[in-house]
Amino acid sequence: MTELRQLSSSDLANLHSQLIAEYGNFKARNLKLDMTRGKPAASQLDLANGLSVALTASDYKSDDGADARNYGGLDGLPEMKQIFGEMLSAPAANVVVGGNSSLQIMHDTVVRALLHGVPGGNGPWLSQKPKFLCPVPGYDRHFAVCQHHGIEMINIPMSDEGPELDVILPLVAADASIKGIWCVPKYSNPTGVTYTDRVVEGLAKMPTAAPDFRIFWDNAYVVHDLYDTTSPLANILDACRLADNENRPLVFGSTSKISFAGAGIAAMASSPVNVADARKHLAFQTIGPDKLNQLRHVRFFKNLAGIKLHMQKHSAVIRPKFEAVAAIFEKELGALGVARWTQPRGGYFVSLDTDAGCASRVVNLADEAGVKLTSAGATFPLGKDPDDRNIRIAPTLPPLEQVELAMQVVTLCVKLAAVERLTKS
Amino acid sequence: MTELRQLSSSDLANLHSQLIAEYGNFKARNLKLDMTRGKPAASQLDLANGLSVALTASDYKSDDGADARNYGGLDGLPEMKQIFGEMLSAPAANVVVGGNSSLQIMHDTVVRALLHGVPGGNGPWLSQKPKFLCPVPGYDRHFAVCQHHGIEMINIPMSDEGPELDVILPLVAADASIKGIWCVPKYSNPTGVTYTDRVVEGLAKMPTAAPDFRIFWDNAYVVHDLYDTTSPLANILDACRLADNENRPLVFGSTSKISFAGAGIAAMASSPVNVADARKHLAFQTIGPDKLNQLRHVRFFKNLAGIKLHMQKHSAVIRPKFEAVAAIFEKELGALGVARWTQPRGGYFVSLDTDAGCASRVVNLADEAGVKLTSAGATFPLGKDPDDRNIRIAPTLPPLEQVELAMQVVTLCVKLAAVERLTKS
Repeated sequence: MTELRQLSSSDLANLHSQLIAEYGNFKARNLKLDMTRGKPAASQLDLANGLSVALTASDYKSDDGADARNYGGLDGLPEMKQIFGEMLSAPAANVVVGGNSSLQIMHDTVVRALLHGVPGGNGPWLSQKPKFLCPVPGYDRHFAVCQHHGIEMINIPMSDEGPELDVILPLVAADASIKGIWCVPKYSNPTGVTYTDRVVEGLAKMPTAAPDFRIFWDNAYVVHDLYDTTSPLANILDACRLADNENRPLVFGSTSKISFAGAGIAAMASSPVNVADARKHLAFQTIGPDKLNQLRHVRFFKNLAGIKLHMQKHSAVIRPKFEAVAAIFEKELGALGVARWTQPRGGYFVSLDTDAGCASRVVNLADEAGVKLTSAGATFPLGKDPDDRNIRIAPTLPPLEQVELAMQVVTLCVKLAAVERLTKS
Repeated sequence: MTELRQLSSSDLANLHSQLIAEYGNFKARNLKLDMTRGKPAASQLDLANGLSVALTASDYKSDDGADARNYGGLDGLPEMKQIFGEMLSAPAANVVVGGNSSLQIMHDTVVRALLHGVPGGNGPWLSQKPKFLCPVPGYDRHFAVCQHHGIEMINIPMSDEGPELDVILPLVAADASIKGIWCVPKYSNPTGVTYTDRVVEGLAKMPTAAPDFRIFWDNAYVVHDLYDTTSPLANILDACRLADNENRPLVFGSTSKISFAGAGIAAMASSPVNVADARKHLAFQTIGPDKLNQLRHVRFFKNLAGIKLHMQKHSAVIRPKFEAVAAIFEKELGALGVARWTQPRGGYFVSLDTDAGCASRVVNLADEAGVKLTSAGATFPLGKDPDDRNIRIAPTLPPLEQVELAMQVVTLCVKLAAVERLTKS
């Protein structure tokens, strides 16, 4: 098959008829497939069912003798800090363990900065018309935090190395109201890109007009390899410290896609100054996190090695789904020149780029054929993809055969939308 | 023994010498007793150890078929809402279940109001110089939330019926910047007072200059009776709805002092409008609460009747401690006319009022003799008791014999401080 844009108009018309017929066949099947959510499958959650019985009735003491059932321990059990320290490449002393949601820790960190400012800054961000840099495509819920609180967002294009430093550097050097950047540095959501050393170092070193610029480093997929070899990521905490910007990075992580998505443990790691600041605020915010669930995780996983072993079981479940997406995309779209997609080596998503102006049409076509996709534009601030090009594919939740069927529909819709567009132009 | 203020100065001098000798004896014992914290004792926590094994490895489905391990369910499992609905006297549909900390729900509710306002209001409270009414003595962590966020606090005296309506009514009628009041309506912290129907109705009905006035109704001790008969509390949600102020009350509760203090479940109940508003914000704040811990609580307690049965076991543990405090206070101070104290029928505290100007001296004297008490003033906004009179006694955590010994020391210190003061004046 040749590239679609090289077809004559009569060939395009013939192809269109053929695609419409295929599309009609799919519609007639009354499919109900949901590819919208980056949720683990039940079979992944089953891997951690031992967590629910990891504690006996008399097992509630932490290593330091604290009673995990009672109040106290604002920033987590020592042994849980240890595990997150290993996972996020930080000293355990610089870890603050939270509840079950790293999004909540990130949200609350933004809110604290809005209301109270951060160490080294000029007071509350709220009065400084704060702006955030948003590498795109990116994680919708990061952007939603900014939108909800009236923080202006600036799109930063992603390359295969991470966010474009050439775009970032002049912006942060010139504008003191740019206070932060959202990063998913490893197996980025949705592109799967892991930031290169050059990008990590660039972010750590770059001069910023804001004295209180913060990198929100959401290391959500730090141990989420699909293959035996990992994509190495430089340590942002070390890089920033070496660049005399020790307080710049705020590193977030969780076990949500390791243990239980809704009942895991989340944490933040940062500089001693930022960690002390977080602790100070937390004393007003809460009585402290659920330490028994921490102990449950400690007993079940034991250490980072235990987590890594566990993640191999996850990859055995989800790798076939990712490979099915890649295989079907390659087979159906490989030669047509109307789409590009990522083949991630970890994380939770495949990023599909259609021709410009086609993404929302593809999502609508798929929806009409019974396949729900994440809304076009969802990976951009305010839900607006300026090129209407990006679609996030989330293959983990449905069973393999549903993923395969859904991708048949999606690739058909990509072809159909492309032919429609080529016919018009 | 006669009242101390009727003693002659030579009798006072003799008594002083005698008290100093007794005080010296206590000091020589090198006591280390901690009466500061309103924490449950280990023997209370033991009552709920079955919680840790309440789920089997395959028990993770809620009644509505949702997988409690996965994402989803922003406001809690239906069966957990049902239990909190019964506990807080609200329809289950008007309950939002949160994490393990009702303080966190209250804090976040205040922050949301500061940044975004509340339904029926004129926008963010932050720009309206908000003030809160603070019944005193009260709960230090309520006041700390206000202090931390720059909310001005106005002391409202507590009577045996609840906060003084005569003081409240003219204030809220005149000042639109008064946005809220902190209430612990049942077995109030620290006085043990349960608000009378007249007070509940008064708060529900009173005209307020602020269209968005909110009652923060922290029903922390709703099932925390020390005796078989409870102190009835009128339903603030009903009272406000009947008074056409349906959106005024925000009701909070938790199982912190029912199951595990640090690993329980917290919730809010309010009007449909307020609940919808909370849900809207929560979608930006978090991926949702830990539903497995909810399921654990549902399996262990089953319903409100199960919780009430469980609370009888708690009262069997802590009632002797409260009665020991009362007995020692009566024996040592009953005739002296230098202190008043509460004999609560529920809750977690005894409130001790010394003569004006003596509380901080008592706390210091006790500290020097090895008995740590909550700081004098802690029960007032900014930690300032204008009369230096109130001391919060927390008898639950230490074993009975330690409570008794500590109260011997405390009553001695009360006498000593009183004699010192009478000698000076």
